[in-house]
Order: sequence, then structure tokens, then C-alpha cells
Amino acid sequence: MFKKIQSLLIGRALKTTELAGEKFNVLWGLPILSSDAISSVAYASEEILLVLVPAIGMRAYGSMIEIAIAISVLLFILVFSYKQIIDSYPHGGGSYIVASDNIGKLPGLVAAASLMIDYVLTVAVSTCAGAAAITSAIPVLLPHKALIAILVIGLITLGNLRGTKDSAKLFGIPTYLFILSIIIMIVTGIFKVLVLKVTPVELYQLNDSTQDLTILLFLKAFSSGCTALTGIEAVSDGIPNFKNPAQKNAKTVLVLLACIVFVIFGGISYLSTMYTAIPGKDITVIAQIAIQVFGQNSLMFFAVQATTAIILTLAANTAFSDLPLLLSILAKDGYVPRQLSTRGTRLSFSNGIVLLFLAASLLVYMVNGSTHLLLSLYAVGVFLSFTLSQFGMFKKWTKSKEGNWKHKAFINGLGATVTAATCIIIGVEKFTHGAWIVLICIPLLVTAMLRIRKHYTKVRENLVIDVEVEGLIVREAITKHVIVPVQTINKSFIKTLNYALTIGDNIEVYHVSTDEEQTKKLIEKFATLKIAAHLIIENAPYRNVNEKLVSYVDEKHKQLKTHEVITIVMPQFIIHKWWHQVLHNQTSVFLRRSILKMRNVIIITVPYIINE
Amino acid sequence: MFKKIQSLLIGRALKTTELAGEKFNVLWGLPILSSDAISSVAYASEEILLVLVPAIGMRAYGSMIEIAIAISVLLFILVFSYKQIIDSYPHGGGSYIVASDNIGKLPGLVAAASLMIDYVLTVAVSTCAGAAAITSAIPVLLPHKALIAILVIGLITLGNLRGTKDSAKLFGIPTYLFILSIIIMIVTGIFKVLVLKVTPVELYQLNDSTQDLTILLFLKAFSSGCTALTGIEAVSDGIPNFKNPAQKNAKTVLVLLACIVFVIFGGISYLSTMYTAIPGKDITVIAQIAIQVFGQNSLMFFAVQATTAIILTLAANTAFSDLPLLLSILAKDGYVPRQLSTRGTRLSFSNGIVLLFLAASLLVYMVNGSTHLLLSLYAVGVFLSFTLSQFGMFKKWTKSKEGNWKHKAFINGLGATVTAATCIIIGVEKFTHGAWIVLICIPLLVTAMLRIRKHYTKVRENLVIDVEVEGLIVREAITKHVIVPVQTINKSFIKTLNYALTIGDNIEVYHVSTDEEQTKKLIEKFATLKIAAHLIIENAPYRNVNEKLVSYVDEKHKQLKTHEVITIVMPQFIIHKWWHQVLHNQTSVFLRRSILKMRNVIIITVPYIINE
Repeated sequence: MFKKIQSLLIGRALKTTELAGEKFNVLWGLPILSSDAISSVAYASEEILLVLVPAIGMRAYGSMIEIAIAISVLLFILVFSYKQIIDSYPHGGGSYIVASDNIGKLPGLVAAASLMIDYVLTVAVSTCAGAAAITSAIPVLLPHKALIAILVIGLITLGNLRGTKDSAKLFGIPTYLFILSIIIMIVTGIFKVLVLKVTPVELYQLNDSTQDLTILLFLKAFSSGCTALTGIEAVSDGIPNFKNPAQKNAKTVLVLLACIVFVIFGGISYLSTMYTAIPGKDITVIAQIAIQVFGQNSLMFFAVQATTAIILTLAANTAFSDLPLLLSILAKDGYVPRQLSTRGTRLSFSNGIVLLFLAASLLVYMVNGSTHLLLSLYAVGVFLSFTLSQFGMFKKWTKSKEGNWKHKAFINGLGATVTAATCIIIGVEKFTHGAWIVLICIPLLVTAMLRIRKHYTKVRENLVIDVEVEGLIVREAITKHVIVPVQTINKSFIKTLNYALTIGDNIEVYHVSTDEEQTKKLIEKFATLKIAAHLIIENAPYRNVNEKLVSYVDEKHKQLKTHEVITIVMPQFIIHKWWHQVLHNQTSVFLRRSILKMRNVIIITVPYIINE
Repeated sequence: MFKKIQSLLIGRALKTTELAGEKFNVLWGLPILSSDAISSVAYASEEILLVLVPAIGMRAYGSMIEIAIAISVLLFILVFSYKQIIDSYPHGGGSYIVASDNIGKLPGLVAAASLMIDYVLTVAVSTCAGAAAITSAIPVLLPHKALIAILVIGLITLGNLRGTKDSAKLFGIPTYLFILSIIIMIVTGIFKVLVLKVTPVELYQLNDSTQDLTILLFLKAFSSGCTALTGIEAVSDGIPNFKNPAQKNAKTVLVLLACIVFVIFGGISYLSTMYTAIPGKDITVIAQIAIQVFGQNSLMFFAVQATTAIILTLAANTAFSDLPLLLSILAKDGYVPRQLSTRGTRLSFSNGIVLLFLAASLLVYMVNGSTHLLLSLYAVGVFLSFTLSQFGMFKKWTKSKEGNWKHKAFINGLGATVTAATCIIIGVEKFTHGAWIVLICIPLLVTAMLRIRKHYTKVRENLVIDVEVEGLIVREAITKHVIVPVQTINKSFIKTLNYALTIGDNIEVYHVSTDEEQTKKLIEKFATLKIAAHLIIENAPYRNVNEKLVSYVDEKHKQLKTHEVITIVMPQFIIHKWWHQVLHNQTSVFLRRSILKMRNVIIITVPYIINE
């Protein structure tokens, strides 16, 4: 039943050898890996204005372009830095790998932790922003923003459980449609004002201000706008998902991506100045621009809103593509539970996908669908991982000193310096707005990963065979003390006893008495069985039957000699309906838990099926 | 650790033989079994006025006495009826026993179901009303009514887990204090008006009405007031809790109880008329009377409120004393899970107590502490079980025709007729207010009980030894096919294999390959072990390792001959911290679940302890 639903929702199972077919080329790789970066422009301009407008009013629009230029410069520095990473790490150069390879395990784990947080935030932020685009077009849905976002996360989860290639097709086309409709909007918008000389109608009134742009304000706006750059790293993380030549394809995608981000982010920033879009209203900045360019109920307005909503939700898909991959790498290194490294029936890392679904949905539920609350948490982690990977690359070049290492070191060094500065700016500016949460979560995650790793190491040490293999097999017989607990003599006891008789000679049938009458009957019945087993009876005035058995076993266990083991043979009822479970004492479950802690006590369960 | 907390909260464990000491005499039996009945007057008068006042205004107070008299008559009919039940059922004559003995199993179960519902409602209603008494005195607590009620239920639960006698002492004194303070209030109240000629100050204004008391209105008010009679049956249910002579003690308690209810209910009804207390306000009717009799901030006002609050919450204790007893009787008959029939460490039926705690708390949470919502659900079940037990007694006498059976049959017949009529009145009047919920729940509970009984019967049929016991022991050896699953050859596998070698000769080491490299290594290592076991390797292109093993075992299982079994020997990791569980594949748990469904597959778990 479960199987059927599963294959209906996520498709038939795929063989391990079908893995190669699930990778993507430039055409599909661009939308799937870049939707995060491209979509962040949908809220980056708004976040910048949200800092500037309340402070300096109309003058904000003059300063907008300066900030957009600063961010664009940062964008291209990052592109050059990341191209070098793609060259050096053909199997995927996530910050975790680059940082732990070149700086050390701890910086690597810090990068991994910030990436984990950011992927979860990406999903939450993008789907909330997507929901905001929907509610801008259809205001009656405003109270259900969080619900819409969670539903969308659910849909993306299903898409990803189906596997990577299917998702690329499913998600690629809308990304292109978004790019297209935004470019149409930018061209039309500029054309209307500059060529047709149309004067924009202001949707909201705004008072002028005499205040000027201070450096502090500039940094604040800059740190808010940096969210536009989140998602750039996705391409270098995702190299293993590309078709061959994977590195070349990845670099092409990276450059294309940067150009698209530049055009769209620049265009929207320019349009928002031109049309004086006011941030922080029920209607998003992009929606305000679209209304002015195309008209309130025009088809193109809805097209912009719809594709914005879709690409924002698809941006979440980048995280669904990359976080499970990161987790599987961490799992192979033993830093997260091992189950995260296994591929599901459709070859995607299904455990990681489900985990991301749960974390992101919880987050959206907690902030009740508000993008702004999440954005303050967002960029600091992204830039921390940027810095660590750039600095890692810088150290790599200065260590190896091969080829034109000076030139390469300069690029990555510049990247590291700029991103580190940005990271500090964001951390300071946003600290009280929520960045502190991230700065607490990162060390917590790192500690957890270190402890998990420690556990796995211990397990391996315990299991690894360190002496001559041959000597480990005990060729003399093991002496077995067999104990068969009994409450009443019935068919399941007889079946259990029959099995016990085949595995040893020294058999004890152990009974705990809480009722004299019952015990008397048991003794009589046992006598008629005429079998070579001792009946041992203990009284339990406090009715603690299980404890008596456990302490009896414990006592015997302490007196065991070498090559001696205790074997407990117990019946287990097999019932057909799950709710029947509550109708039986869960004695065997309790016993397993208590007795299994003893090193040399083996438990044998003999099934007894209840026919109904 | 858990043990320590447990014994701190509920006291040291008690031996089964200490059971006799836990019973109570008339002095302690009266408060513990009657608090439900006595306390219901705290809301019964208010419920009557709540029907009358909105309909006929000031005239309500004239009609109040008529209704109080009708209810009092019903009270004494019930007392006579129940005295006969106590005589006939020395081991406790709950409606379930009386109805199933004399009418049939199904009516018995209907009575049991209505009692179950009513006990849960008793707890919920009483604690909510108790919370209302508290919030009447301390209005700032009004928003936390539900929380107060749930906390109180928790305290009562703890008291009951300590055992019956302790509870009697703990709960007896406040009951007497309540009776005392209410009688003082009644006497003072009447004295002030009739002797001192004080004119009561009206706390709330009320318009007069020209409407008269219609029959419909009378019935409505009567059905609301009948909640005063709930709890009467507790005495006959609780006979086994009395010291010897149990029946005589129980009858004495029953009569005393009826007299107290009569005095208090009559007195409060009379006072509410005298002082025109208005129902349905933030301040309860009793509180209004107490304010007028003793003054707003007088000590006696707070004494009345405090003892009311305490007795109301203690009324819940009646249910905690009786429902677990009823459940234990039902459990012995196989109608509810068997665990409900075992006594806990303190000799109380702890599972039933905990169950009642959960159900009542949930109910209080759902209605957010409102008494009125619950009261509409309340009386219909009580009167249904009254009717069934009275009718059961009536049939008993007409069947046996012993002694002065006609006289006895008349009393119980009258009881049955009157309670049946009342039940119908309540059912009709309250149907749309919530009685329908009860009328749905009763058949659901009865169905559940019948299904549970069916399951237990099937289990017994499956287990009972029906042929000669001696012939059941298989004296020829059982042939065992031993399978040892392996993923990698490590210490825990070696330990498991060592054990497997001692129990059979035909041993298969079974490996599912998902990785060619790993499998190659395994084959080489296995060869060096040089043991008499076949290595069987299967490929799993879909990575479904567990399924492969299960289907392999299933195939073998189908080909088994008589006296052949399959034995699977598996290692089980024992780890020290609970959270380490998530770090390991729960393969063995999955396998147990799938494989245990096969009749002749025995599972052996060999513990392997991971040292950390």
C-alpha cells in the first residue's frame, strides 16, 4: 500500500547504474542551479529601499544606483573567484570541501554549518517571497501566506524525491519565463519613460527629506542588498550534477548566471528609482513596477507576478538539489547520520530532502510567512561560507606556488577580503535583527557534527578486527545457559520450549509468581510435560515480574566464565492489526531493552502467530 | 532515576498482601465516595436557574422550589433502589455488572460505556467548576481557568497513584469542611432573613416577566437540575473498597449521602430564591449567596469558596476511585486492554488512573474550562446507566421470585421507570446541546469493547492446549537452517557467527551487494576465516538490501518441511546514549518487523556493546 502511493508520487525505482542519466547540461543546469541567485533580485532591491526610504525619503532613489553598482562589483569578483574553484575541484567545490582541504577541519565544518543554515533559509525565504508575490496579485490570500509557502515546499519536495533530471525539466522552463518577462518589463519600463516620455503615476505618497546618505546608511543598505548574491555558490557545489565536460559546463553556467543577475538586479533597481516604488507595503516593489509599466489588470502584470512566484519557489529547489548533496558528503566523512548518504529509490538523497522539508516548513510556520524576518538571518551565513572558501583557495595557491599562482591568489585573496568585509558589515548591521541566532547555531551545529564523528570513530574502533582473523573463530563449543520464561503453559510456550530443547541441555524454565493459585496449576502442568528442564519459581510480592527476571539474568550473567553465554528463549505474539498491540503486555519489548545491555546474553524470539 | 522520582511522588511500593489495609470505613468512605454527589449541588442549582431566569425572569425563583422537590423525590427513589443493589451485589454492583447479569451482555456494555463517559465527564466538570469557584474569589485568574483545572486533575492523579487509603485521608477532611461551611451558610442565611429581617441586596438587576412556568420549561429545568443526582451510583460501585461489613457500611454511607445532598441542595435552592442569585455571571450562584450572607471580603465567604473549590475538585476523585475499578472488572472480562486489570506499585490500578487523567485533561483543554458546555453532555449517560441497573434489578426479582420479591421489584421498577423517563427528558432537551455526542460515543465504545473481547477470545483459542500435553513436546531434533546476514566482516559479525556455529551445521552467511568493491573485499576476508559456512551473495541494483534478505528468507520459509525451522542470527549494537540511535541504520528493527510474520523463522540477536 505504502509502496504503491510512493511510486505514484515519486515514480518507479531506479537502478544505481541509471545514475549517469540523471545529470544535466548547460541548458537545464542554468535554471536549476541559478534560480536561487536569479530569484534573490526579487527581494534584494526591496530590502535596499526598505533601509533607505524610511531614513532619507525621496533621496533614497538617488542612492539606489550607487549601492547596486557596489553589489554588482562584488558579484563579478565572486564569479572570478568561483571559476577558479570550479577548475580546482572537479567533484564539487563546496565551501566545506575547499575550507577543510586548505585551512582545516574546523573551518570546513563552520562553512558546512553556515551552508546548512543557509540552505534551509533559502527554502524558507524563497517560498515566503513567492507566497508574497501571489498575495500581491490576489490580496484575499494574504492571511494564508505561511500555508501557501508550506504547500509549495511540499510540492518541491515531491519533485525532488522524483530525482534530479525530472526536476530540471519541471523547473527549468519557468525560470526562463521569469527571465524573459522581467527583461520585457525592464525594456518596456525604460522605453516608456525615456522614449515615450510617460510620467510615472506614484502609487504611494512620500515626503521628501533633507537628510543625506551617510556611510553608516550606505553600509546598512549594502548589507541588505547583499542577499542578491546568495545562491552564487550553488554552481560550484553542484558540479557532480553536470554532464561532461562538467567543469566547463559549470563555468559557462556561472558566467551566464552572473550576467543575468547583473541585468535583472540592475534593471529592477533602476526601474524602482524611475517609478519610485515604495518598499514594505502589501504589494511588493516588483509588483508596483509591473502595475505602472503594464497596468493594474493587464496580462503582463499577472505574468510577472506568476513567474516571480514560480521562480522564487523554484529557488528553493536549488537548496533541495544542493543540501542533500552536502549532507551526503558530510555523512561519508562521518559528521552527520550515515543514512543521509544513501540514495533513495529514485536515486536522490531522499533522507536529506525530507529533512530539509521539515526544517524549512517549521521555520516558515514559526515566522508566519514573513520574508523580512528571515532575511536578517540570511546573508551572514552565506558570506561566512564565501569568505572561508575564498580564503581556502588563497591558501591553496600560496602553498602550492604552481603556475601563475600569484594571479590566482590575488583573485581569491581579493574575493576573501571583500567577502570577509561584507560578512563583518552584515554581521554587525544585522546582529540585533537576528544574525545573532545564526552565530549561535553555527557553533551548535559544529559541536553536534564533531560529536557524531566521535561516535562513529568509536564504533569503528570497536568493530575493526585487529588480531589474526583466523584466531577469532571459537572452535570449541560455547556453553549455553538457556532460560525460558513462562507465565502460563500454553501453545506458544510449548513451541518456545521445543526450540529451546534443540539448542542446549541445561534448560531452566523460569516463572515469577504473583498469584499462588496460578503458580500451583503451572507446577502441576509442568510435571506432566516430563521434560529435562528445571522449573524455577520466584515470588514477586510487589508484582514486578519483569524486574525479577532481569535481576535473575543479571545475577547469572555476572557468574559467567569464558566461552559461556546465557540464551533467553521467548515467545513473541504476532498479531495482524496494529491496534491489537495495545491489548498485550509489551513484556518482550521491555525485556529486550533491559537484557540487551548485558554483553553475553543472547535473546531468541520464537514467533507465535495468532490466527484471526 | 525514574524509580526515585516515582517513589518520591507516589510513595514506596506496596506488597499485594497489604491490599486489605487499603480499604475504608464509614467515616472515610463517606467523603471519598460521596464527594461527587455532594459537590454536584454546587452547580445544579445554578443550572436550573440558568434555564428559568432568561425565560421567566423573577418568577424563576418561585418555580425553583417545585423543581428542587421533584429532584429530591427522585433522589430518595434512587437511594431505595440502590440499597437493594448493595444487598444483592456484595462485590460491587456497578450498572455494568447488574445489567449484564440480569439483562444481557450488550446492555451491560452500554451501561459500562455510559459510565466510562460519565466518569471522564465527572472529572472534567468538577475540576472546571472548582476552577470557577477559585476564579469567582480571585477574578484575575479568570483567563487561566482551563490550566487551573488541568493542574488540579494532575494533583488528584498523583494522590490516587499513592493508593486508596492515603487518598481517603487526604480528601476526606475538606469534604467535611465543605458540608460544614455550606450548612453554616444556609443556617445564617435563613436566620438573617427570617429572624433578623435583613433585606437582601440584589447584586444584579433583573427585569420581571409576565410569562409563566410551562411544562416544557419545567422539564427543561428539571433535566438540568438532575446533574445534582450524578454520583449516587458511586457507593454501590465502590463496595469492594469498604472495610467489613462492607455492605452494611456502604448502605449507611448511601443513606447519609442522600440526606446530605437533600439538605444542601434544598438549602442552596432555597437561599438562591431568597437572595435572588443570578446565574451565568462571572461569579457563581453560591458565591453570590455567600457574598450577601457573609459580606464580600469576609473570612466565611472565602471559606465557602475555598471548600467549594476543594470539594468540586475532590469530586473528581470519586471517578479516580471508581473508573479504574470498573476498567479492571471489564479487563478481567476481556473487554478492555488487559493492562488495566493490574495493580501498580502502590496497589492502585495505575494504568486506569493515568488513562483517566489524560482523557479528562484533554476534555478540559478542548472546552477551555467551561463547565456549562460539559454539563449538557453529562446527565444523559448517568441516567442511562441508572435505568439499566434499575431495570436489571427489576428483572432479577421477577425472575427469581424469592422472598418479598414483589416489594423489591416494585422499588426497582419504580426506579427504572422514573430514571428512564428522566433519561428521555434529558436526552431530548439536551440533544442539540451535546447529548448527541454521548449517544454517538456509547455505540462506538461498545463496538470497541466487543472487538477487543473478540481478539482476546481468538488469542485464547490459539494458545489453549487442546490435545494431550505430553504429545506436544517434539522429542526428535528440529532441523535448523541458520542464516547469518553480513554487511562487512567485523568484530560483531565474528561474535554473531561464533554463536551461530554452536546451534547448527547448515549455516549460510548472506550478503547483499550494493557496491562491487566492498563485496570483493568481503569474499576475500571470508575465505581467510576458513569456516564451514556457505557465503551467499545477491545483487541489489535498487539498493533495497533489507527487502532482498526478507524475500530470500520468505522463499526458504515456503519450502520448509515439518520440524524444520529457519534461524536468523543477527548482531545488535548496544549504544549508550539514546541519541546515538539515529546514527545507525535501524536494519534489525525493520527485519524483525518483516520477518517475524513468518511462522517458523526464529530470530536470534547477539548483543555487541560499543564502548565509549
